[in-house]
Amino acid sequence: MPLTDPTIIPVELGDRRYPIVIGSGTAVEAGDASGGTLGEHLLGSLGDVSHAVMVYDAAVKDSAAASVQKTLQARVGRVDALEVASGETSKSIDNLGRLWNRLIEVNADRRSVIVAVGGGVVGDLAGFVAATYTRGLRFVQVPTTLLAMVDSSVGGKTGINLPGGKNMVGSFWQPHLVWIDTDFMATLPDREYLSGLAEVIKYGVIEDAEFFAYLEDNMQAIVARDPQSVRHAIACSCQSKARVVADDERETSGRRAILNYGHTFAHAIEATAGYGTMLHGEAVAIGMQMAARLAVALGKCEADLINRQTRLLDNAQLPLVWPQANPEAMIPVMARDKKVAHGKLRFVLPDRIGHVELVGDVPVDQVRFAIDACQ
Amino acid sequence: MPLTDPTIIPVELGDRRYPIVIGSGTAVEAGDASGGTLGEHLLGSLGDVSHAVMVYDAAVKDSAAASVQKTLQARVGRVDALEVASGETSKSIDNLGRLWNRLIEVNADRRSVIVAVGGGVVGDLAGFVAATYTRGLRFVQVPTTLLAMVDSSVGGKTGINLPGGKNMVGSFWQPHLVWIDTDFMATLPDREYLSGLAEVIKYGVIEDAEFFAYLEDNMQAIVARDPQSVRHAIACSCQSKARVVADDERETSGRRAILNYGHTFAHAIEATAGYGTMLHGEAVAIGMQMAARLAVALGKCEADLINRQTRLLDNAQLPLVWPQANPEAMIPVMARDKKVAHGKLRFVLPDRIGHVELVGDVPVDQVRFAIDACQ
Repeated sequence: MPLTDPTIIPVELGDRRYPIVIGSGTAVEAGDASGGTLGEHLLGSLGDVSHAVMVYDAAVKDSAAASVQKTLQARVGRVDALEVASGETSKSIDNLGRLWNRLIEVNADRRSVIVAVGGGVVGDLAGFVAATYTRGLRFVQVPTTLLAMVDSSVGGKTGINLPGGKNMVGSFWQPHLVWIDTDFMATLPDREYLSGLAEVIKYGVIEDAEFFAYLEDNMQAIVARDPQSVRHAIACSCQSKARVVADDERETSGRRAILNYGHTFAHAIEATAGYGTMLHGEAVAIGMQMAARLAVALGKCEADLINRQTRLLDNAQLPLVWPQANPEAMIPVMARDKKVAHGKLRFVLPDRIGHVELVGDVPVDQVRFAIDACQ
Repeated sequence: MPLTDPTIIPVELGDRRYPIVIGSGTAVEAGDASGGTLGEHLLGSLGDVSHAVMVYDAAVKDSAAASVQKTLQARVGRVDALEVASGETSKSIDNLGRLWNRLIEVNADRRSVIVAVGGGVVGDLAGFVAATYTRGLRFVQVPTTLLAMVDSSVGGKTGINLPGGKNMVGSFWQPHLVWIDTDFMATLPDREYLSGLAEVIKYGVIEDAEFFAYLEDNMQAIVARDPQSVRHAIACSCQSKARVVADDERETSGRRAILNYGHTFAHAIEATAGYGTMLHGEAVAIGMQMAARLAVALGKCEADLINRQTRLLDNAQLPLVWPQANPEAMIPVMARDKKVAHGKLRFVLPDRIGHVELVGDVPVDQVRFAIDACQ
């Protein structure tokens, strides 16, 4: 099966409908006036554009960013490139202000498009800049990490961190196009690649039992980065996320909350471990284990779910426990989570593989037990 | 006619529909558990609220803010009050960051409501904070200046300034309620009150000839702050703005641009005079005169329009000319306006009282002439 024909997944959001395009080898050589397949899709998705501002992660300057810049130059003409340092600390008020001011300097206006090239940090930051500069510019996501490809680039959440909390400010701002070229992961370190698999496995648990079974059968090939298996895993993950986002774009019905499976624990793990100690996907893997323990303890599901999830995370070389896990430190962080309603702890818990529900008013003792069980 | 029964004007925006309530004497005494008429409307518009954050202008601390705080305490219970210094310089990245961080400190979450009490500066700043904190909180506008009552509090534009330009970043974020108590203008200095009349007169020119005629007949009473005339002028202005906003919420069809009558010139006047030298409404009055001159010079309307507009602005004690007006300084500023498409100068010009159109590709010579004519 040739991998050069892109897989296209629509995100159905009415007049904000947009495609996720998944391909490989979409990079162009300088001088190719078509801009390659990315160039064609850009034109189809954006319409009239006079100016592109590419915001890129310093880590992909010579790889993905160089390639995307050539495409933009071929298709849009006027292109400015703004670099962002790698790492979560770049999602700061300082960087936000710096980018806003740079946009004025390069004469960006409402006909400009912002193109984010990098992982979740650059996508979230550049997306928030796009949402707010002149009250809204068009926006394209070109994720270059597995985590960004299957999660943060899809769904329209943008934002930055405050000293007091991650993602505390931001906007819902949908991209016009998400462009996934699996070749852009070539320079991604293994630990980061594997970390992204935690979110992939999450989709199987929360709403796609068939995909979970596929992952059980093919995890070895995916870990080895077999192109066809990787593309299928990304496509199923994006499809899953697109379905949930289309049902509940702005987190109002509660449906979108299922994407937070494992994340209430994970955010508390990241916060108490100190951001940067553990990769987000690693914390999510442990958080999913804690959530599964909690579900079994509350009698919501069979213990076999933990066994299957444990085996799959282990095959993806993800951590299953965190020896430093401390309920007394983690629980107060969870109570401050911005998705908490009136201070009550709520969790997304599975009742079987492929289905979760939102459970409120969970006794603190049970939460403590679930954390302790993953030490 | 008793002025205690509020006038209610709906802004028709589908599921973001909200009322503008115009009354007087809505302030409550401490200990009144009903929270007065504002308290009742708050409850009707907001539903389930656990926490209110009042962001207020230092200038109204002991007047409007004290009164609104009592109402919030009676109706919502948990209330935090955050002060913002008076003046346009408060619409800064620094203040934005400070308010974001303060919201974390007071444990604001998605059930909190932001209540802005003050003029356009506080409304724009607090509105942008509401639009972005946890990706969106409910928001109430309590304008205390005439300018904010008839213009900035209605329509959902929020934002801050950058060193390189006014209102360069922000969001469209509709309030759940706009609460106008004309008593809150009691402490407003005359110069600021009169400045607000420029926007009132603007509505007559752009889309309500009958209202223009009413203003011609009643300007003396309005200048003297006769309660009934003032309330009628505010209500007609809000109705006018509500109609335009309902037609074109996010400035996509071009209809909303008519609200910028006089403003392309006014922004250039403010920028070249130095912000703070002239009040916004004063710059708008002169800008409307320039726009009217331009319309006549281009053969778009009869010279009598200038005569009627001049007389009305003069009766409102507004400036008609600006001796320092310099086309060479103003025109480059206009070309950088964020509403400029691809660098082409566009103006909102009247063809008769009560009707304007958007005119593109205006020759620079004519713009220069219109500016010179108002020196």
